[in-house]
Amino acid sequence: MPFVRIDALGAGPQRLDALGRAVHEALMETIGIPPDDHFQVLVGHDGTNGTLRYGGYLGVRRDEGLVYVAITLRAGRTDAQKRALYARIAELAHEYAGTEPRNVFVVLTENASVDWSLGHGLAQYAPGPGALM
Amino acid sequence: MPFVRIDALGAGPQRLDALGRAVHEALMETIGIPPDDHFQVLVGHDGTNGTLRYGGYLGVRRDEGLVYVAITLRAGRTDAQKRALYARIAELAHEYAGTEPRNVFVVLTENASVDWSLGHGLAQYAPGPGALM
Amino acid sequence: MPFVRIDALGAGPQRLDALGRAVHEALMETIGIPPDDHFQVLVGHDGTNGTLRYGGYLGVRRDEGLVYVAITLRAGRTDAQKRALYARIAELAHEYAGTEPRNVFVVLTENASVDWSLGHGLAQYAPGPGALM
Repeated sequence: MPFVRIDALGAGPQRLDALGRAVHEALMETIGIPPDDHFQVLVGHDGTNGTLRYGGYLGVRRDEGLVYVAITLRAGRTDAQKRALYARIAELAHEYAGTEPRNVFVVLTENASVDWSLGHGLAQYAPGPGALM
Repeated sequence: MPFVRIDALGAGPQRLDALGRAVHEALMETIGIPPDDHFQVLVGHDGTNGTLRYGGYLGVRRDEGLVYVAITLRAGRTDAQKRALYARIAELAHEYAGTEPRNVFVVLTENASVDWSLGHGLAQYAPGPGALM
Repeated sequence: MPFVRIDALGAGPQRLDALGRAVHEALMETIGIPPDDHFQVLVGHDGTNGTLRYGGYLGVRRDEGLVYVAITLRAGRTDAQKRALYARIAELAHEYAGTEPRNVFVVLTENASVDWSLGHGLAQYAPGPGALM
């Protein structure tokens, strides 16, 4: 279910792949999603038709290695789970993609069970009358 | 009002256009939005600077034809309307773009009336004191 | 904290930069965010792998100069602040990028304090037990 959008600067396919794996494994470990619950849009911006802007807010020294991770997920995760998720994303982004933890920016947006259709035109998390599953 | 973001793999202008029409007509038919209430960002990813990741979660056999449809809309639609929307998007994506219903992934995010400005710097759905409309 | 995504048609680096500045300064002036609280993804679509769709909804005469501004921010801003934000974005987009106010479309999505990690794997707005800040 989580739907993940990752934006990075100048990231080729290999680095995008590493970042995607970092976020996915962090979600599996801290939120408990299954391995095949994997839905991501990965985009590298080369400065011509797309780019990122950032500041040093809260004293964090960000640079061109910055990665934006935007995750949409169903409401219900605890604050402790979210904190564990952030920590693990930062760890694995460093391990897999060489991204410094200071450069990992994560934002979550929550919605409801009925707000998802995972294929076949169905609302799998909130099946209604006449639904196939 | 709905703001729609569609991401697909290797989709040229024609396929993106067909997918955009599918989602727009489904919104008109099931949610009742007017024809000119049409706001979309359509992006095809070619694997160099952007790509999609996906798994077989819930037993759905997804492949490179996968389409992510992310819709932001005001709160207030019923569960039945949302279910009808998913079913109709899947039908029309198949009819217009040849996309298999198993490859249509939809996620909704709701907000409030005051969270929209549809031009001229105004909050058209929640006009305040001194607003022009 | 606000996380901003701007999508425009055929926008080169200079126009994207001007639009980004317009939105950032409007956020500073009307919402009170500090200058370095600056987090944006700016994308120009050239019609090959990405494009925008739009209609004339509510009688607004939109054209190829259209700009979509999607802002994720913590809940808590008043309706008056949001109205001021829309007005100021439209003004500054015109002043900095030559964008007509009729072509400025803004949508807000709110979340909670614990939904942000601004680096170092921490939830800076909702520090928990054992957090470093």
